[in-house]
Amino acid sequence: MPTPVETWAQQIRAGEVRAISRAITAIENHDPIADDLLKMLFYSTGRASIIGITGAPGTGKSTLVDRLAAAYRRAGKTVGIIAVDPTSPFTGGAILGDRIRMQSHASDAGIFIRSMATRGFLGGLARATADVSLLLDAAGKEIIIIETVGVGQDEVDIVRLADCTLVLLVPGLGDDVQNMKAGLMEIGHVFVINKSDREGADRLEQQVHAMLELAHESDGWRPAIARTIATDTKGIENLIAEIDKFLARAKASPEFYSREADHWSRRLIEMLESRLLDRLLGTKENKDRLAALASEVAQRKKDPFAAVAEILASAGNR
Amino acid sequence: MPTPVETWAQQIRAGEVRAISRAITAIENHDPIADDLLKMLFYSTGRASIIGITGAPGTGKSTLVDRLAAAYRRAGKTVGIIAVDPTSPFTGGAILGDRIRMQSHASDAGIFIRSMATRGFLGGLARATADVSLLLDAAGKEIIIIETVGVGQDEVDIVRLADCTLVLLVPGLGDDVQNMKAGLMEIGHVFVINKSDREGADRLEQQVHAMLELAHESDGWRPAIARTIATDTKGIENLIAEIDKFLARAKASPEFYSREADHWSRRLIEMLESRLLDRLLGTKENKDRLAALASEVAQRKKDPFAAVAEILASAGNR
Repeated sequence: MPTPVETWAQQIRAGEVRAISRAITAIENHDPIADDLLKMLFYSTGRASIIGITGAPGTGKSTLVDRLAAAYRRAGKTVGIIAVDPTSPFTGGAILGDRIRMQSHASDAGIFIRSMATRGFLGGLARATADVSLLLDAAGKEIIIIETVGVGQDEVDIVRLADCTLVLLVPGLGDDVQNMKAGLMEIGHVFVINKSDREGADRLEQQVHAMLELAHESDGWRPAIARTIATDTKGIENLIAEIDKFLARAKASPEFYSREADHWSRRLIEMLESRLLDRLLGTKENKDRLAALASEVAQRKKDPFAAVAEILASAGNR
Repeated sequence: MPTPVETWAQQIRAGEVRAISRAITAIENHDPIADDLLKMLFYSTGRASIIGITGAPGTGKSTLVDRLAAAYRRAGKTVGIIAVDPTSPFTGGAILGDRIRMQSHASDAGIFIRSMATRGFLGGLARATADVSLLLDAAGKEIIIIETVGVGQDEVDIVRLADCTLVLLVPGLGDDVQNMKAGLMEIGHVFVINKSDREGADRLEQQVHAMLELAHESDGWRPAIARTIATDTKGIENLIAEIDKFLARAKASPEFYSREADHWSRRLIEMLESRLLDRLLGTKENKDRLAALASEVAQRKKDPFAAVAEILASAGNR
């Protein structure tokens, strides 16, 4: 007879929505059962195409994701969406509105939507997103879309998961592309100029073009630029064609597997870090000792290097 | 006779610019000698007031930092400035310009300015900034100003170092304070409306005021709002008075030391993580094994949990 976790894993492989939702909750709560599940599901992963979408607030990310998902569904593909929200008491309302609008897909079993909040995750958000992405992959979603507000290191870590990263820009939303989007310019595979019927779209496209030319002069590959008006479902098919072109090219390249291996190197290190820390700080006694040492360091009664040496020594593994 | 490191530490305590600069370079390069130095200098730290300044590009951070530093110098205080730059091929020029302008202080031995680039540091930037801040503290700088572009988790980690955090806003730079500055609203101690002669300053002040009222309704303390026109050196003395008021209040509060202890808890954990990883992955042999395992995982020949267990087992500390 299968164990409860095996049954659960089987339900996830079959794409059962409630089983998937429960598993995401387990991941978010750092429930150890999530690791058991992911271990079981791991060999069912690696089949999805992961598309990352990032852009400042106001660029129309949610609408674009909505239209992309609908287009993929029309093409017969199953879709998973992970919307990573920078949560705050001040933005909760607007974000919630977006999510409700996206529930227009709620009756379609071929699409799964989940939003994940930044709050409480801090550095762990990229890891949780990666785990949820594995889960949706195992659940048979052929296209996984990860949506983030692209501003900090966290978001950069998140989009690193993606096989193809879209960077959204809109005309007139602060024209200092130079300043605001520097990090994004380096991670984008397709640059999407949304709301492209607005004034300034041509100029923005020229700016992006000039920058990409500057950045990618030597290595042969240059990111594509696609124009969309997501609210009117315009430019979506062309955008999908650009994504497909990029993915086909990327998967044919010898770098694709080394990129995957690099990704797993980073993830293994993260997992090692959290195992080692659990061992060192996992008990209440150990946590209390850390707090006492930190307080001594704060009062300059002990230097931090001596405190670290003390913890390592007492763990019997100096 | 003192060892070379002891001599170096002595030069830093005496505020010698070249000795400080060399130490910062050692920190940036992860040179183990930096730890030796910081261990020696640690008991000379804890005296500086650390002021964090964060705000989007275009809010006039560098100019404000420049004017603040000049005002502190007039009051006879020594100043250290750490400017944390999100570096990119696209912004290098502008940032360099700012730094050159700030070198107007170059002939003043009571002020030390250093910019640190994001590139290459990734998650380690907050740690490097914290170490440089300790160093400047040991070098006798009474005021340490840490300047960052406030957008991601990295920046939030950096400003956590500060005893008092200023959040810079300007009228008319995208009025969706709600969206863009959510994280910052929660970490700011003084909100500075710079370029306050611009249209929209009153409205922005009202917006900030309303938000702060909403966020801080219960806990008694509400962040101050100060208006400046940094380019004309207007409002600077008033801003310093608000900073002093906050610092006096904070240092008198019982939470001040628990905040310091929390800070050192986090730092000790970071140091433990890096020690443990060094031990596990410090040799070329171990690094090669990690790369080989990551490649197996990428090809789905092994699951990541099994790979982690294998590394821990072979390190003899399962």
